Amino acid sequence: MNIGVDLGGTNIRVAVMDDNGIIIEELGCPTEAENGPLPAIEKIIAMIQSLQEKHAVRSVGIGAPGPLDAKKGIIIEPPNLSSWKNIELTKMIESAIHLPVYLENDANAAALAEALIGAGKEAESVFYITVSTGIGGGYVYNGKLISGAQGNCGEIGNMIVDPHAIDAPNLNKGALEALASGTAIGRKAESVFGPGHGAKEVFLFAQEGNQEAAEIIDEALSYLAMGIANIVHTLNPEVIVLGGGVMKSKDLMLDPLKEKVVPLLYPSLRPHLKLKLASLDQKAGVVGAGMIPRQFLQN
Amino acid sequence: MNIGVDLGGTNIRVAVMDDNGIIIEELGCPTEAENGPLPAIEKIIAMIQSLQEKHAVRSVGIGAPGPLDAKKGIIIEPPNLSSWKNIELTKMIESAIHLPVYLENDANAAALAEALIGAGKEAESVFYITVSTGIGGGYVYNGKLISGAQGNCGEIGNMIVDPHAIDAPNLNKGALEALASGTAIGRKAESVFGPGHGAKEVFLFAQEGNQEAAEIIDEALSYLAMGIANIVHTLNPEVIVLGGGVMKSKDLMLDPLKEKVVPLLYPSLRPHLKLKLASLDQKAGVVGAGMIPRQFLQN
Repeated sequence: MNIGVDLGGTNIRVAVMDDNGIIIEELGCPTEAENGPLPAIEKIIAMIQSLQEKHAVRSVGIGAPGPLDAKKGIIIEPPNLSSWKNIELTKMIESAIHLPVYLENDANAAALAEALIGAGKEAESVFYITVSTGIGGGYVYNGKLISGAQGNCGEIGNMIVDPHAIDAPNLNKGALEALASGTAIGRKAESVFGPGHGAKEVFLFAQEGNQEAAEIIDEALSYLAMGIANIVHTLNPEVIVLGGGVMKSKDLMLDPLKEKVVPLLYPSLRPHLKLKLASLDQKAGVVGAGMIPRQFLQN
Repeated sequence: MNIGVDLGGTNIRVAVMDDNGIIIEELGCPTEAENGPLPAIEKIIAMIQSLQEKHAVRSVGIGAPGPLDAKKGIIIEPPNLSSWKNIELTKMIESAIHLPVYLENDANAAALAEALIGAGKEAESVFYITVSTGIGGGYVYNGKLISGAQGNCGEIGNMIVDPHAIDAPNLNKGALEALASGTAIGRKAESVFGPGHGAKEVFLFAQEGNQEAAEIIDEALSYLAMGIANIVHTLNPEVIVLGGGVMKSKDLMLDPLKEKVVPLLYPSLRPHLKLKLASLDQKAGVVGAGMIPRQFLQN
């Protein structure tokens, strides 16, 4: 059995699971990132140790927000874990629990779970895209996570889809994340509906038939469609799985998105497009984290 | 020993090579595509048979222009093999030579050769980009060609980098190939320097210090840099290898291209960019074709 740790900006989830990714027992607590890394790491260790007492755990996988150095097990400086800077996370936890600990980007961990036991199950190749505050992704081929030379595979939020579009901090001009993320939709909401309005209101208004809200969503989907078409022409994955809070509404998002992607593909690829909603929901992160150790053992 | 066949719009090359991709003997002839597929296929068979008589050949790999169906061994309808339409190429050749025959996209074949014994040798992951009449590519991970669910991995010519840019036939609006290929440079050359001028003149004029020619190249390189940055953020390959006629000039192309790609990458990725010129030149196609059979045997 392995333990998966989903280290988020708000919550930490720790779960012990069998080799099929079935969760046997799960613990959780708030991250309280504002208190710095040490208290949070102590809580992770305590939760792992309490699970170790009851279960025969072989190894631990952690999914955490980037940027991070997966190979060295270091959290570099994630925007949503402020004051975490060059933290040797795997080393610190390993020395306390005496088991091998592995680290991966949280989107990569979720990609692994969705590819192996979620919406991409049984496909040879799966590209996972998460659309929430930011846009990220992960690529799983033949059951293996392709992590990339510096662990940055799937950083599609920075993909340029419109070099004439707006600037956004820490991103390329016209990057996908600046145009199609929840943050991008929220920014548009504020400029159209006034301060205090965000992505949530846009979806609410659109469902009520508001034309301006529908246009905001339509623009974001148009850019997302370009990003997806670019991934298809670059990698031709068998299945593309869409997760993240923004994608939740099938009627409002997935179906219109499909309609926009198809005409952007080479004609021979159009009938083969498989765009699916993620099926593991909130669990993808912690389950995928628990699957990371096996990835290394297979190498 | 294996045989590689490089089936091009102008010439056919057939070579027998050892397991290291070293060519032992090579034959060639013009394709004469205008005569239709049958005479060309007969010439391929005759060349293979003449090599079979002298060498212990185990299998044959063919690199051919897309679109094609690699798994079924069918040439679908390539623009530069007009009148070839749904040709069951591997079946036709297999029945004549009684050896297993494998088919791959020509850019994928070249990618394999450059990754295994060319400029990407010893890298874990290599993305190969060819910039000539069109723009294509291929992705090799851990020594294996990632072909894609429908064999369309590396079709980056259709990647959207500027949705406000010009339309081009059979491509997305603002596709990389429409903005940065030899054809795109040639089209600009005609509009700036008048009919009869093409990409060749642009490079000549630029080398002589002509400002307008330099601007045409600069614009193509800017778009190519966006395409490369998009590939880096999608796949984070260890090495990117650039082949094709347009990339030949290191001073004019590779060095300025590097300068344009670096600022488009996440800061942590900038020091790691490895952009290299292809090293096998014209041979990549036929050598890579000869390496295709081994890819299937390894599966």
